[in-house]
Amino acid sequence: MNIGIDDLPVRDELRGKSPYGAPQLDVPVRLNTNENPYPLPDALVERIAERVREAARHLNRYPDRDAVELRTRLAKYLTDTTGHTVGPAEVWAANGSNEVLQQLLQAFGGPGRTAIGFEPSYSMHALIARGTGTGWISGPRNEDFTVDLAAAEKAIAEHRPDVVFITTPNNPTGTAVPAETVLALYEAAQAAKPSMVVVDEAYVEFSHSASLLPLIEGRPNLVVSRTMSKAFGAAGLRLGYLAAHPAVVDAVQLVRLPYHLSAVTQATALAALEHTGTLLKYVEQLKSERDRLVSELLAAGYEVTASDANFVQFGRFDDAHAVWRQILDRGVLVRDNGVPGRLRVTAGTPEENDAFLDAVREVKKEQSA
Amino acid sequence: MNIGIDDLPVRDELRGKSPYGAPQLDVPVRLNTNENPYPLPDALVERIAERVREAARHLNRYPDRDAVELRTRLAKYLTDTTGHTVGPAEVWAANGSNEVLQQLLQAFGGPGRTAIGFEPSYSMHALIARGTGTGWISGPRNEDFTVDLAAAEKAIAEHRPDVVFITTPNNPTGTAVPAETVLALYEAAQAAKPSMVVVDEAYVEFSHSASLLPLIEGRPNLVVSRTMSKAFGAAGLRLGYLAAHPAVVDAVQLVRLPYHLSAVTQATALAALEHTGTLLKYVEQLKSERDRLVSELLAAGYEVTASDANFVQFGRFDDAHAVWRQILDRGVLVRDNGVPGRLRVTAGTPEENDAFLDAVREVKKEQSA
Repeated sequence: MNIGIDDLPVRDELRGKSPYGAPQLDVPVRLNTNENPYPLPDALVERIAERVREAARHLNRYPDRDAVELRTRLAKYLTDTTGHTVGPAEVWAANGSNEVLQQLLQAFGGPGRTAIGFEPSYSMHALIARGTGTGWISGPRNEDFTVDLAAAEKAIAEHRPDVVFITTPNNPTGTAVPAETVLALYEAAQAAKPSMVVVDEAYVEFSHSASLLPLIEGRPNLVVSRTMSKAFGAAGLRLGYLAAHPAVVDAVQLVRLPYHLSAVTQATALAALEHTGTLLKYVEQLKSERDRLVSELLAAGYEVTASDANFVQFGRFDDAHAVWRQILDRGVLVRDNGVPGRLRVTAGTPEENDAFLDAVREVKKEQSA
Repeated sequence: MNIGIDDLPVRDELRGKSPYGAPQLDVPVRLNTNENPYPLPDALVERIAERVREAARHLNRYPDRDAVELRTRLAKYLTDTTGHTVGPAEVWAANGSNEVLQQLLQAFGGPGRTAIGFEPSYSMHALIARGTGTGWISGPRNEDFTVDLAAAEKAIAEHRPDVVFITTPNNPTGTAVPAETVLALYEAAQAAKPSMVVVDEAYVEFSHSASLLPLIEGRPNLVVSRTMSKAFGAAGLRLGYLAAHPAVVDAVQLVRLPYHLSAVTQATALAALEHTGTLLKYVEQLKSERDRLVSELLAAGYEVTASDANFVQFGRFDDAHAVWRQILDRGVLVRDNGVPGRLRVTAGTPEENDAFLDAVREVKKEQSA
């Protein structure tokens, strides 16, 4: 008997769906998932082994449920890099920013409630909303992928969402949202009804603009979410975190699974935080490579969306997926996020970016021929 | 301004609640969370450091999203220890069995659906139901804490739940559920409506009875959940897993967060699985200590629930919490799970168990005096 998902008593809205995730293809140059191309430095690899060895000696015991040491170090990192002082009571960590966002939606969204995002944006926001039973509202953007403030305020007033997602820099477009826009949306959201505003800053270390973290001061319904996957070059670690009023941190503890963050994850993240200085140097390299991608793509005749992230959205194509395939045929994997006429490329090493630029120049030449 | 959780737009059902979790007190003898008292052997600690060092070299990349190597090794462990052959397509892993159960409820429970458990049982079942918007039904047990089959069948027929939890050995009572009972409940559940039956075997390695894993054969709606926290002495690792029909594994992949299982977690679990033989020797020691706790508690005049786990439920007390405190005053932390008149003690090392037995004998003497 050949039994599939639909033969099980699965929830109706899951029938016919496929799991989220970029194709994992074995290709020489992978610029599709916004990973940091630089492996961790050897000294940090050794320090991770050392800290995990120490943690493994007590692995028979449950981990620190509240991850106090880790949250203290994350708070210090945020304070050092933004100039806005936060303490461990204002910081929470989980297995990737996806789990942070899931916990926020479990506490502030959920059945009978709604969340809004301005799309195209990080597609997991809508998926985690679905996974937590939160209704999803797809808010608008301008033609140039910036947030259309008037239209966004109108959508908030009309739908009165419980949670508002603002992704800055936005993924997959790369566009940053100015602080004034975030403040205006926060006010609009509170005017509609008391609601949480989640500023997703997964890529903020690559931005030309400063973090919006200081905005949490005096705004208990504002949350800034972060990740160590990108700037810290630790996508494999799965460590996301948030900064917000301590009451928000208390609230997510009502829905978090107890001991959600393993002792090895905590140890590895602590090791990486000891090497912040070195890791942020790679960020500078990636920013300059990102800027080079933008100018070279423009020079090659592509349309490019202004980017504050470690990736660049480019186009415009009649058939973006066909172009994705043409680039892949040249050994370079980029991302088709389903934005009509656009593709997204992650800033890699200079060599990887050269390979990508050679490929897209060739593709352009073929199209013109 | 002093802002608390209730000042935030948190979900109504979370108002006034506190986070789940045993008190983490600094006490000489901690026998309250069913941890394995034996630290991992040195050779395994070194192997973990080695495998994590290797994983850390690629930490800038996302982990294997499908954890194929880990699921293959878990499948081998299940096959070796139960004699029932399962492959990686029938196994799924997540951050602790709590996350496994959360994913199952996201796929098969959720808003508008219900789950039943036979209480007292593992209290996270009800909490994860609440966290996923699944209605919770508290099913009955006999006076001696075994499952009351007739009453359970009646409850299933009446409530027609979407998910049925059967915990064997049961936590916090220690009682195992016979295979015939599980089969009868599975039939009752399917007769009421197509529904998932989750057999939670977190403590099965300590049982006098065999695993019910072979029951998944030909029963696509039956799931067996497991953990490495107890028998593998790795509570700090947070690695739970399930075995079921491949369609169930496909279904949880619709709700799992992508890349939920970090590269360091996968590496550490793989190292531990290389040392299965050594770790299972500790299980044998703990089983004999558990049996000693049972007979010594009986000899000391306590009522004891038959145990198939690494812990023992004992009583009967007019005021269990007062006795919990009296034992704590003697430097031994046991667990008050809220079962009227009962407490739960985890089997520790022989020395820890001696300290516990001395304490309860003293308490008994005082009560009789």
